Amino acid sequence: MSQNVDVAIIGAGTAGLTAFRHVRKMTSQVVVINANHYGTTCARVGCMPSKVLIEVAKTFSRKQHFADFGIDGSEQLTINRTQVMKYVRRLRDRFVGRVMQGVDKIGDKNIKGHARFVEPQVLEVNGERIHAHKIIIATGSRPIVPPEWRNLGNKLITSDELFELEQLPDSIAVIGLGVIGSEIGQALARLGVKVVGIDLLPTVGGISDPIINKVAIGGLSKDFEVWLETKAQLSEAPEGGIKVETDHGKSTTVEMVLASLGRRPNFDNLGLEEVFNLDFSNGFKDLVNPNTMQLGDFPVFVAGDVNSIRPILHEAADDGTIAGINAVQDSVKAFKRRVPLRIAFTEPQIVVVGASFAELQGEDIIIGERNFVMQGRTKVMARSYGHLRVYADRQSGCLLGSEMMVPEGEYLGHFLALAIENKMTVQDVLVTPFYHPTIMEGLDDALKAIAAQQTGALKEPVLRSHH
Amino acid sequence: MSQNVDVAIIGAGTAGLTAFRHVRKMTSQVVVINANHYGTTCARVGCMPSKVLIEVAKTFSRKQHFADFGIDGSEQLTINRTQVMKYVRRLRDRFVGRVMQGVDKIGDKNIKGHARFVEPQVLEVNGERIHAHKIIIATGSRPIVPPEWRNLGNKLITSDELFELEQLPDSIAVIGLGVIGSEIGQALARLGVKVVGIDLLPTVGGISDPIINKVAIGGLSKDFEVWLETKAQLSEAPEGGIKVETDHGKSTTVEMVLASLGRRPNFDNLGLEEVFNLDFSNGFKDLVNPNTMQLGDFPVFVAGDVNSIRPILHEAADDGTIAGINAVQDSVKAFKRRVPLRIAFTEPQIVVVGASFAELQGEDIIIGERNFVMQGRTKVMARSYGHLRVYADRQSGCLLGSEMMVPEGEYLGHFLALAIENKMTVQDVLVTPFYHPTIMEGLDDALKAIAAQQTGALKEPVLRSHH
Repeated sequence: MSQNVDVAIIGAGTAGLTAFRHVRKMTSQVVVINANHYGTTCARVGCMPSKVLIEVAKTFSRKQHFADFGIDGSEQLTINRTQVMKYVRRLRDRFVGRVMQGVDKIGDKNIKGHARFVEPQVLEVNGERIHAHKIIIATGSRPIVPPEWRNLGNKLITSDELFELEQLPDSIAVIGLGVIGSEIGQALARLGVKVVGIDLLPTVGGISDPIINKVAIGGLSKDFEVWLETKAQLSEAPEGGIKVETDHGKSTTVEMVLASLGRRPNFDNLGLEEVFNLDFSNGFKDLVNPNTMQLGDFPVFVAGDVNSIRPILHEAADDGTIAGINAVQDSVKAFKRRVPLRIAFTEPQIVVVGASFAELQGEDIIIGERNFVMQGRTKVMARSYGHLRVYADRQSGCLLGSEMMVPEGEYLGHFLALAIENKMTVQDVLVTPFYHPTIMEGLDDALKAIAAQQTGALKEPVLRSHH
Repeated sequence: MSQNVDVAIIGAGTAGLTAFRHVRKMTSQVVVINANHYGTTCARVGCMPSKVLIEVAKTFSRKQHFADFGIDGSEQLTINRTQVMKYVRRLRDRFVGRVMQGVDKIGDKNIKGHARFVEPQVLEVNGERIHAHKIIIATGSRPIVPPEWRNLGNKLITSDELFELEQLPDSIAVIGLGVIGSEIGQALARLGVKVVGIDLLPTVGGISDPIINKVAIGGLSKDFEVWLETKAQLSEAPEGGIKVETDHGKSTTVEMVLASLGRRPNFDNLGLEEVFNLDFSNGFKDLVNPNTMQLGDFPVFVAGDVNSIRPILHEAADDGTIAGINAVQDSVKAFKRRVPLRIAFTEPQIVVVGASFAELQGEDIIIGERNFVMQGRTKVMARSYGHLRVYADRQSGCLLGSEMMVPEGEYLGHFLALAIENKMTVQDVLVTPFYHPTIMEGLDDALKAIAAQQTGALKEPVLRSHH
């Protein structure tokens, strides 16, 4: 048995479904091949359930201010962690349900099974050959678990299992303090779980600016213990639980370990090595063009988390759009990617937008900064902690990037991305309104701090002339 | 006794203090004449204390979700309204303290007393004549109280008295549902005060878009009774309290009435009518140039709330900047004003940015909209209510304005203001990142709804080509 199609898409997550939508506009000769879960990582085990957990944790942690505010009875409040997890799953199931409506649209174009490359334009699925003019790989990723930890059984979990827990543990070690580890570690701590967070690196939440990193470590440390620049050894404790020992001589025993060490692309069983004469030891990272999604010069496109380029939902969707458009065209078109934006939904939020501090090393930049300990609106909200650094090009005055840990920083991130994408100068932004009392005024201050360091023609008054 | 100065500034609020800072850079021959409160309306009786009250109310009202979230004991929570008011005043006093540091900088340039014009360049203060080359009027505004309500004594309050109350009443009628009335009415209702809100107009919170207005009325009505398009008659009730009767036949008895009918400029005792040959019956509204702050052709500038042009803190500060710069220059310079932005800190927030719906009547516009009842992030936050409408020019694709009632709408307002001020098209905004899951994605949807209605060259793909 064999069939011929214009496009075969392997994977039915955000990237695959988005690609399908674009391909379907141009041809009905398309199939989607998917083996396991349909729908996205985001709705099932990623952004959505974690955001619900974070919202509950954030709401519960507000009780520390109730007595001050004049709200009596906060000492009576307790957290029912079984009920929290039920609530998280109830909302999660609704989000997944909505994604599945998108999956249903695949209809009879859907093939359930594992795909394996036989030739660059031939796949084998369930013993059947599929000849495809173009192929899109969108098989996603899965959490990394070091092999030596597998013997810990269900005491070792990843974000794939976390939201399935009926009952949260009383104590947990979170290994890896990137975005996911920082978010989940803080949320669990606020729900009364004793948390220790451990990372090999000296940085948390994907921050590269040392000043913001220090503030972020301080922020996270209010809720849980943070051990950095150290490697964790795990073993079963004789008294039960898992013993965590670091190479710096610290140790603790916890009920459970959450491995949040990043994610690994799902391409192990696609048979790529045999068909394509490429070195896949670093995944697709340097093999795929991020502006076309094309794999080398092959009629193959690689979209979404599997390419390890920008494993964030809106980027996975763009990957799918680009792959989908290019899979149905004779010549491959290059698209400009969006300004980078990464958000950790910790409290305060960690945001990296545009060029990071690390990427700007050696460039002639001006930095404007603002601390949020004494900022009007954060005082009003009883959320006064954080720090913002904004980077601008000294010659042009153009905004380049920013790193921050700031309350509601997600919005500052979007605002700065809009400015950076449109090549705006500090002055272009300073002439827009900053309302009082808002957290945006803190950004205004940071931009004014840049303007104060500018010279020559850029040093113009904050208000524009009227023409 | 008499003295000669370059500039005399009447009033020491935001506008006056900002003007002083600019004048002081150019000349030491400047005086600030002020009779009553120093510091700003905002910190004393406006934005700041009201935002603290709103934050407490918002926090307390979250308890409705606690059982769902898995937080037990919410039925034990009670509000201690005496303590709430103490907390509001404690923070208020800190904010005022910070403003007073700015006041201290006036130093010996300060004259305490009432100023009265004798000639266009001569003032009389405490029996002394001050000859000033230029004069800046920055005397602010005060809440409107209809004369027939004055006999109600301390049962009738305005925002000037609200924050001084030791104890909040059990019931209150809020008369006037503009920004202040909507904010305070909702906050008091959430703190357990029985509130009825009344307005002559069919609109609330300064909204002009009928669809947003309807959503806003629905939003406010969740917390308190809203009676619109009706005039309230007040009288002392025989059983105590105030009887409120409307011309639509509704009536209720309340402990107190908050008059939030807008603010009146403070210029009654400046002697303007005798010195300037102008008609002040509408205040300064058509007499002052908003780009120069100049009063007609006189060597007089009018800044801040007293001019009734844009009674919002950041605009009052700009007024002061413009007046201060122009008061020390030979020729008067015209400045471009910022894109209009108005925010009501209700929940969800009401925002009007750029051109309002009313201002765009007769223009060829495309409207994109998004409802927030079924939006991902607002579901996650258990804040799923609201509606957004964005207006764009059909020919150019440029964003013109927006009205909304949306959770955390203040940030959408700033974001859109940046785009409008910099003449950005819908496409310029659509190519920037919209992170998942955020409320910003709702704005993305509204913009895509505009793009879907565009034709011709504007109808380009959402991603830009790579050059």
